[in-house]
Amino acid sequence: MGTQKIIITDHLHECLTEEIELLKPDKIFILTDSNTHEACYPLIKDHPLLGEANISTIPAGDENKSIQSLMFVWKSLSSFGASRKSLLINIGGGMISDLGAFAAATFKRGMRCINIPTTLLSMVDASLGGKTGINFNGLKNEVGAFYEANAVLINMQFLKTLDKQNNLSGYAEMLKHGLIFDVPNYQELLNFRFEKNADLNKLGILVQESIDVKKYYVNKDPHEQGVRKILNLGHTIGHAFESFAMHSKKPILHGYAVAWGLICELYIAHRQCNFPKEELKKLIDLIKDRYGIFEFTCKSYDKLYEYILHDKKNTKGSGIISIPLLKERGVVSLDETVDKDLIYESFDFFRDFMGI
Amino acid sequence: MGTQKIIITDHLHECLTEEIELLKPDKIFILTDSNTHEACYPLIKDHPLLGEANISTIPAGDENKSIQSLMFVWKSLSSFGASRKSLLINIGGGMISDLGAFAAATFKRGMRCINIPTTLLSMVDASLGGKTGINFNGLKNEVGAFYEANAVLINMQFLKTLDKQNNLSGYAEMLKHGLIFDVPNYQELLNFRFEKNADLNKLGILVQESIDVKKYYVNKDPHEQGVRKILNLGHTIGHAFESFAMHSKKPILHGYAVAWGLICELYIAHRQCNFPKEELKKLIDLIKDRYGIFEFTCKSYDKLYEYILHDKKNTKGSGIISIPLLKERGVVSLDETVDKDLIYESFDFFRDFMGI
Repeated sequence: MGTQKIIITDHLHECLTEEIELLKPDKIFILTDSNTHEACYPLIKDHPLLGEANISTIPAGDENKSIQSLMFVWKSLSSFGASRKSLLINIGGGMISDLGAFAAATFKRGMRCINIPTTLLSMVDASLGGKTGINFNGLKNEVGAFYEANAVLINMQFLKTLDKQNNLSGYAEMLKHGLIFDVPNYQELLNFRFEKNADLNKLGILVQESIDVKKYYVNKDPHEQGVRKILNLGHTIGHAFESFAMHSKKPILHGYAVAWGLICELYIAHRQCNFPKEELKKLIDLIKDRYGIFEFTCKSYDKLYEYILHDKKNTKGSGIISIPLLKERGVVSLDETVDKDLIYESFDFFRDFMGI
Repeated sequence: MGTQKIIITDHLHECLTEEIELLKPDKIFILTDSNTHEACYPLIKDHPLLGEANISTIPAGDENKSIQSLMFVWKSLSSFGASRKSLLINIGGGMISDLGAFAAATFKRGMRCINIPTTLLSMVDASLGGKTGINFNGLKNEVGAFYEANAVLINMQFLKTLDKQNNLSGYAEMLKHGLIFDVPNYQELLNFRFEKNADLNKLGILVQESIDVKKYYVNKDPHEQGVRKILNLGHTIGHAFESFAMHSKKPILHGYAVAWGLICELYIAHRQCNFPKEELKKLIDLIKDRYGIFEFTCKSYDKLYEYILHDKKNTKGSGIISIPLLKERGVVSLDETVDKDLIYESFDFFRDFMGI
């Protein structure tokens, strides 16, 4: 994100004009999914520089972050004569920016692209930092590239059309960013609520702070060789919850899984690195209050553990779980080796606290 | 190629051992095509560190540098549990290193890979410098990435099984390298002949020199924004010959097209940039002698010109042909704008000289 421009703006049209005049593309292409084509694309549709843009739309839903959709985008670019100097504008959530930026990364070995994230989750996470990709062979993000969009243009107005659950999904990543770095407005972040007529300007300030945290770690370690791993806080166990829920045919939103994963991973941090008890308690009260309860019995521990072992972030080899942990808010301890017993204990703690 | 290790070695086994011990992969995968699986793989088959390697083989031929083959490789990597720390060894010509290194570039956003080029063309060109990709939508290298193999291991013995035509195909790129940089052994390069029992050690020295030229330009400009374009000398018109021949159902080898393309582009350089007449004459005598005649009539000029216009290297917009030219051997003039008339004149010159 050293060279990646990230702009929060109330003036999306003007901002887009500036970026297009800067990049001087020979042709412009737009990618949306079926939802954002209806709800978001109209906001920029009448932009005078987009009159001749070629629009591709793929069906919404993570199951369409597929090789078939990727080939569809490549085909559009190729058939309408895109060059390395053409521009692809991705309008959507993480699915669209992941897939669209990967298409841009690989078309003629790299063309220009701009992300316009339309969900809170993609504003503070997915659309930034260059991780692009598709699902393949039944596995999430199995194929992809590190490739930064030339610019990310964020307009908070898109969140008006987003439901509370999806906003909370993005909010979980903001909580994570607030935990891994000592952000100035941490208390404001904890107090923010997604009610009707929530103050989007205030949220914009918190989003900016959240982006700055991600920027900080990505710039320090673009290819996730070391300290960037802390951005996975809550995700090792969160992904296990997500997979477990998906296979139980009761899928949960990514951010919900991360929020619940944070409870377990902060508990482990408390036991292994002395992460402060009060901080832990404050967080889990908030998460229970906002995200509700995630149910599983002790019979599922082995299955959950199996998902953790399969998590691609654990590369140390079979049976050893390596998780980035926090000593306190903003103080990272990378590659902590965590015992199976302690993970099971965190499940117990989680269920106790949830009252299940 | 700043970080890319390129080694010409008589001791492929030992060299491979060293690289594997350096990279410490958790798993090893091998990619061959049907030809190299039979002719080349046996030379390293018994390597003690490759005992458990997983081998994928795709059908030989450029028409298999396809999305289907790519998906086949991704699937093998995924199903046999490759991680970012696994290693893919590509054994073959340009088709295999282009496709294999692209698969490595995009599997989990980048895993390790080593190229073992088995043709002269891939030793001096295709396997080096990070241009990877596949053909898509009927277009060559339409999809790909810049991604350098961790190491390129070159063993001249592979050329023993290569026929004279394929050796000459690689030799054309060596001639090009000898033209765009003032190499010390230029005369030896011109004198070298691919006869039976040709001196492979001598060829090895010339190959090293050729690699150094490519290295020089790639390091100066990894993403082909400027001076790297001179590596396309002979290719603008060469590609037109290649496409023309393919569509006439009389396909020609890439290097032959480049050699013939060089005649036209050096003639243009002579007319537009005063490239010395004697140097031009020497080269075209040699090319006619080694590569024979390429036939077309003046009725095909428009078609050839159309292919040139479609060449992706011309990004200045419709109708303007921008070609890198030489003022003299080793002295580059980038982005020369060449008239249609002069290109047609170069076709006349080519046909005159070929006696057709």
